[in-house]
Amino acid sequence: MSRISPLSGFPEWLPNQRIVESHIVSTLRRIFELHGYTEIETRAVEPLEHLLAKGETSKEVYLLRRLQEDSQAPESDTLGLHFDLTVPFARYVIENAGKLHFPFKRYQIQKVWRGERPQDGRFREFLQADIDVVADGELPFHYEAEMPIVIATAFEQLRAIGMPPVKISVNNRKVSQGFYQGIGLDDIEGTLRTIDKLDKIGPDGVRELLISENGASEEQAEAALALAAISGEDSRIADDVRALGVSHPLLDEGLEELVRLVEAAAQRVPGVVHADLKIARGLDYYTGSVYETTLVGHESLGSICSGGRYDSLASDGKKTYPGVGISVGVTRLVSRLLHQNLVTATRSTPTAVLVAVWDEEDRMVSENIAAALRGRGIAADVSPTAAKLGRQIRFADRRGIPFVWFPGRDHAGDEVKDIRSGEQIPAEASTWHPPAEDLTPRVVAAE
Amino acid sequence: MSRISPLSGFPEWLPNQRIVESHIVSTLRRIFELHGYTEIETRAVEPLEHLLAKGETSKEVYLLRRLQEDSQAPESDTLGLHFDLTVPFARYVIENAGKLHFPFKRYQIQKVWRGERPQDGRFREFLQADIDVVADGELPFHYEAEMPIVIATAFEQLRAIGMPPVKISVNNRKVSQGFYQGIGLDDIEGTLRTIDKLDKIGPDGVRELLISENGASEEQAEAALALAAISGEDSRIADDVRALGVSHPLLDEGLEELVRLVEAAAQRVPGVVHADLKIARGLDYYTGSVYETTLVGHESLGSICSGGRYDSLASDGKKTYPGVGISVGVTRLVSRLLHQNLVTATRSTPTAVLVAVWDEEDRMVSENIAAALRGRGIAADVSPTAAKLGRQIRFADRRGIPFVWFPGRDHAGDEVKDIRSGEQIPAEASTWHPPAEDLTPRVVAAE
Repeated sequence: MSRISPLSGFPEWLPNQRIVESHIVSTLRRIFELHGYTEIETRAVEPLEHLLAKGETSKEVYLLRRLQEDSQAPESDTLGLHFDLTVPFARYVIENAGKLHFPFKRYQIQKVWRGERPQDGRFREFLQADIDVVADGELPFHYEAEMPIVIATAFEQLRAIGMPPVKISVNNRKVSQGFYQGIGLDDIEGTLRTIDKLDKIGPDGVRELLISENGASEEQAEAALALAAISGEDSRIADDVRALGVSHPLLDEGLEELVRLVEAAAQRVPGVVHADLKIARGLDYYTGSVYETTLVGHESLGSICSGGRYDSLASDGKKTYPGVGISVGVTRLVSRLLHQNLVTATRSTPTAVLVAVWDEEDRMVSENIAAALRGRGIAADVSPTAAKLGRQIRFADRRGIPFVWFPGRDHAGDEVKDIRSGEQIPAEASTWHPPAEDLTPRVVAAE
Repeated sequence: MSRISPLSGFPEWLPNQRIVESHIVSTLRRIFELHGYTEIETRAVEPLEHLLAKGETSKEVYLLRRLQEDSQAPESDTLGLHFDLTVPFARYVIENAGKLHFPFKRYQIQKVWRGERPQDGRFREFLQADIDVVADGELPFHYEAEMPIVIATAFEQLRAIGMPPVKISVNNRKVSQGFYQGIGLDDIEGTLRTIDKLDKIGPDGVRELLISENGASEEQAEAALALAAISGEDSRIADDVRALGVSHPLLDEGLEELVRLVEAAAQRVPGVVHADLKIARGLDYYTGSVYETTLVGHESLGSICSGGRYDSLASDGKKTYPGVGISVGVTRLVSRLLHQNLVTATRSTPTAVLVAVWDEEDRMVSENIAAALRGRGIAADVSPTAAKLGRQIRFADRRGIPFVWFPGRDHAGDEVKDIRSGEQIPAEASTWHPPAEDLTPRVVAAE
């Protein structure tokens, strides 16, 4: 095989790194399931026309064609790889509506693909972990509060492995839209997009654009900037907004929701969820709450978990399904934790015990010991050859396997050695157990 | 969204079906890890030239291109979706050789894609679960015996959920090649391919082809057919082959290996692994043992788990890496178990307890109960609305949630109801536990 080299934007992990990723995925899975989310997987492909329905990402789509296919022009039935898990989930809901029970809470952990230019924290293939709740009529607001609470609970669990704390920032489309309407601005979407540039071009740049591009007066621009400057964790954010002297029924509704959300979150997961009224990204297609999450101390990485509420997550023409969801960028997170050496695995293999082989003739004795250990839930491997003992121990040492088992010879019993301490004790495969912390590889803060 | 319909060859599961698939995957994962296999995942794409190196499957490859890409002609750096997990694993081994420890035992559970015409048991997107051992020098034979033993152990675990027993058939390239050379046949590959047609065209058809296409004499054809008729589970297969009066050093070597394999398997997993000398599929590219697995009573489904030994799994030009591996066709297996109603999940959600809500004002009381249960590892959900009690119970009943929790009112304590039996008892969220069999959805034989 020629030209073996990594492909930019398609990250792969070494075995010990995969153990870290896998631990994070199973933590998310466990927390999602404890909250009543059921798993689905969808196929990797969708018809191009469905992918393009969410227009702005069209440029990033990978299309498929068979090597032997005749035509190379994209046709209406051309398939593309999904670029998120929301579009396929919406299609799945419509396709299976008669067989699902609503409100339907699902989680989905799969790879997605985007033909983007790879850069730090951006990949062409990456793993996402999504939760969504979709209803076939009304979707109660409390699910909008549930999203960041579930995510904060999951990330809290990951603190134990050395993951930094997260900050989940929330806003509500109704607040921004109601406020802009209240001050007489017409170009809501345009204003949202301009406000989104705040971090990049600063308040002066934004003020200028609001006036030149979004038809705002000097006073309207000031008011929009004042709104974007508000943040907090309790009902004082509503006071701060009202102090700007703008009133509109949608604004009131949005403020009530936003306060409800941050107060519910403060009770359940204190110190994680903040209202931040400058968050605009996503507000132009979400219709209620919107979420962004940063890893504290790693803000430049961008959001590692985003989402929001759609009044129309899916629609089959007759019926519309409102939904709310949030998506963890697993690869972005794992990549940062690994590349900055924040988190590590205690070994690169599940094996807890290597059973030594004295002689190839006696391999079956060692195999029997390994089988007895496995039957009791202890991962065991047998030495590949009856090499010198030093070499067999080195085999274990290189992989971080903590124990080497010596089958008894000449009427002596079996013994097991902790190769870290050198301690060697008599043992029987039917009763011996490693310390709990050595049973499986652990994922821990790197030192 | 228009034209919502399933795509032929791209299977998707409903939530309760995914629970079945997920159970099977985690059983495989657990057994693989107990045997010391470490997990890796590889990217979904490989350069086309690498995919084509395994020539015969070229017609099945899905190529990728970006929607906005200029050129549509396949170029040397065109990417395609992997059609198995062996080609990417071989590339991964070469790419990371300096960072892996050999012999390297890995498992890999991922989707693969083939542009095949979909039919029963054949899909365009499907899940495979592979184990392989690769060495950077000698690969000891005992790993060839390990493959079917690990797989038989995993499938044995799945008998508990109603999966039928499996029959693993093995053969050895050295036996066939040594035998053919011993009787003076030159066209080894051609003969293997003709013998592979035995089930389709019968012995008379095969005899004719061996003579007309593979240059066999009448006697040579008879001998090849006699070899293919031999099967068994112990050293008598070697006696049967030797009774044919052919001798060749490679034949002797192959017979010794084949007998060692079936005898090791008979000790560890009795009654599952059989030598079957008519198995030819794969022998033209494998170099030692080869495996095929049928689900007893479902032979027409084809092999659900196949593999074998390569002397050259991977090579970087300087160094050659021998390997042996086996691959479970998870989707083919799951699809059969589901569509023939052999296996089912006891419910369609992880939720064990639905906490009722008396009044929207009191939702936080119910949320606190759910949080307490979750904190103790019990999956809990809170009723979506404070609807009439009958409706809340129906919500649980439809999803198969076994318990509904009633928060205490008017100084009364909480109570929990088993909605199957109707039994309702006082309970506290800090101490109550469901019966072990109700804690998570179970996967069981369908009745």
